[in-house]
Amino acid sequence: MKLEDKISPSFKNIRMSPIVTISELVKKKAPEFKAKTGRDFVCWQRGEVDFPTPAYIKTAALEALEANKTKYPISGGEPKPKEAILKRLERVYGARGLDADHIVITFAAQEALELSFGLFRGKKGAGFAPCWSCALENFIPYAEIDFTEVPLKKDFSIDYDILKKILDEPGMSLFYLNTPHNPTGKVFSKAEITRVAEMCKEREVCLISDEAYETIVYDGQKHFSASSIDLDNIISTFTLSKSYSMTGWRLGYAVTRNKEIARLLKLGNYTQTAGVYTFGQYALEQAISNVHEEQKAVSAMVAGFARRREVLYAGLSRINGLTIDKPGGAFYMFPNFSNLIPKNLTGEERNKFIFNRLMNVGVATVYGSCFGRHFGDNVRVSFSTTPVPVIEDGIARVTEALKGLG
Amino acid sequence: MKLEDKISPSFKNIRMSPIVTISELVKKKAPEFKAKTGRDFVCWQRGEVDFPTPAYIKTAALEALEANKTKYPISGGEPKPKEAILKRLERVYGARGLDADHIVITFAAQEALELSFGLFRGKKGAGFAPCWSCALENFIPYAEIDFTEVPLKKDFSIDYDILKKILDEPGMSLFYLNTPHNPTGKVFSKAEITRVAEMCKEREVCLISDEAYETIVYDGQKHFSASSIDLDNIISTFTLSKSYSMTGWRLGYAVTRNKEIARLLKLGNYTQTAGVYTFGQYALEQAISNVHEEQKAVSAMVAGFARRREVLYAGLSRINGLTIDKPGGAFYMFPNFSNLIPKNLTGEERNKFIFNRLMNVGVATVYGSCFGRHFGDNVRVSFSTTPVPVIEDGIARVTEALKGLG
Repeated sequence: MKLEDKISPSFKNIRMSPIVTISELVKKKAPEFKAKTGRDFVCWQRGEVDFPTPAYIKTAALEALEANKTKYPISGGEPKPKEAILKRLERVYGARGLDADHIVITFAAQEALELSFGLFRGKKGAGFAPCWSCALENFIPYAEIDFTEVPLKKDFSIDYDILKKILDEPGMSLFYLNTPHNPTGKVFSKAEITRVAEMCKEREVCLISDEAYETIVYDGQKHFSASSIDLDNIISTFTLSKSYSMTGWRLGYAVTRNKEIARLLKLGNYTQTAGVYTFGQYALEQAISNVHEEQKAVSAMVAGFARRREVLYAGLSRINGLTIDKPGGAFYMFPNFSNLIPKNLTGEERNKFIFNRLMNVGVATVYGSCFGRHFGDNVRVSFSTTPVPVIEDGIARVTEALKGLG
Repeated sequence: MKLEDKISPSFKNIRMSPIVTISELVKKKAPEFKAKTGRDFVCWQRGEVDFPTPAYIKTAALEALEANKTKYPISGGEPKPKEAILKRLERVYGARGLDADHIVITFAAQEALELSFGLFRGKKGAGFAPCWSCALENFIPYAEIDFTEVPLKKDFSIDYDILKKILDEPGMSLFYLNTPHNPTGKVFSKAEITRVAEMCKEREVCLISDEAYETIVYDGQKHFSASSIDLDNIISTFTLSKSYSMTGWRLGYAVTRNKEIARLLKLGNYTQTAGVYTFGQYALEQAISNVHEEQKAVSAMVAGFARRREVLYAGLSRINGLTIDKPGGAFYMFPNFSNLIPKNLTGEERNKFIFNRLMNVGVATVYGSCFGRHFGDNVRVSFSTTPVPVIEDGIARVTEALKGLG
């Protein structure tokens, strides 16, 4: 038997992110497009954040380095950063009754989520569709989860009948909830999240609550964190990547009231990486404890996103035949193009119809089928890296590209 | 079914490192010991390094932070750090014919090794005994590997007959080799490593070559890197943790001439952590490219270890009945106490007999059964954190504690 044939399906089933593939396509097409039109690509496909990391957090990293926080970390997290996380969860979400043994510091939410899916290797899982592509392409195949998508309604509200039916399946072990939601920007309410958590608890299903966009909410809305629910079947995962513009730092954490699960996540984190780089943990501590600097930096960033959201939403809403919900959080919109796609198209041709049209005018997006089986006529538009003038240019191009359709 | 009962054995089978357990025991016993004797514990159990991270590497991290290398890393590794790795492998080991697609930058050797074992989830594997405890306690159970220990001879040389017999087992998929070797300090020769690699290749077995102690060798010996062998069944893993005194930075890399394996390791790295923190990759680049500073820092550190090794080896050699090999590399010795342990003792009582005697005089070591089934009468002594005067004190205590035995 060849060596390659001995490799586990766990690795072989991982797919490269379609978003990376799209970005590579953009890189290839951009020079040609520029030569022909004199214009740059509008990069609405990316989840990167274009704001710099706030200076106070960089300073904290420097200070930790100078203080020689460069020896092996305590796996699962150093005491002081954990203490800061507990304080923050209480301050921001009113989460009480948590202690240091409920927290595991991880390499961003990525590792927290990967470990959480991994706990249920080979078991049945479910989650709302549309679903963050990285869960579908990476976490689920890597953990060999038998995954069922629970479609949200057209307005992205929850269909509890379908949810109940799928959670009732024998052997169901995990449910993946992401709020604020990628790709729709929906902010699930306290009532929705609590009801889902209780439905999971009744069936001893683990609720994996991905709260990566926790600070990015609009119009006075507030993110509700599942970590504040007093149930032992929940893992909440957090990252500084989006909320503090720290994508390249790889800093985050998992919170669960189930100490056995926390213990196993910590062992998994130790096994995979031996813990998060020590001075990074102290940068995390400062990022979330220096409340004055934190609020200044985060509110400036969110105000920036809010301006882009207004312009993008207003512009896309004006396009005939396109239906769109105004997102409550994150930095995505997920408009539906059903009325503009020729009825006879099916399969790959249908999935990429709008995407290709927009690529032709130098606008990169992510087509809906990257987020599962149920929203193939939608397209994700990210406003995380494009300032207002670029958004205005993008809207003009999209409007032009869709003229005469539907 | 309870939620906890749905959790995969992969996580449940991980064991906490016995070395961590020993360190916790030391922490508990130390105050009492100090009160009674006025003396501190001699910590010979640890693999931490007590030298600080060289200043030029800290400066490189600061510069990368200032240059805002804080956005998402390219998963698998940024181009410039990869280029630096390729240059170093050629400069130090004469490794030719490698390119960027053969390199995956990881969270230290820990992640590189965990991913490499993970590739062969559920398959048969083997490795020399004694064996680094973390492989036995973490990587092997996490990947659910059916693992066979191949005992080294008493002088830590390879018994090729046993090796052949075990590699011939149907379904054998990986062989774990660690050089310079933890816990014995043995430096495997070019001839030994090449022969093992070829025996693996003949059977399409993946050789996982753990080279964590590559720069720590004595008496003019040179580490031979399996990455320089032109075979496609080898994964070499490297870390800056020990070699550059950077345990808390979590920076390392995997090298393999098999592009399919490199591709899958990269996907695994992306899935687990989305890549190594960006400014850390640039610190790694500088650590290994600034040859002048590197040689100054590494040679000072290795000279420090060499002095400790002379004192420790001379002292332990003088103890009657103890047999000991002078280590060629790393910072461990693995003396055998068979002649000093009462013949009638068995099981746990035998395994911990010497360890307990030494704990009673305030000397912490790691008992041999932590490194597998075959060297239960040995004990690992680490000189990575104890300066010469502490080593001298330790030798005096050990000599006293063993008096009258055998």
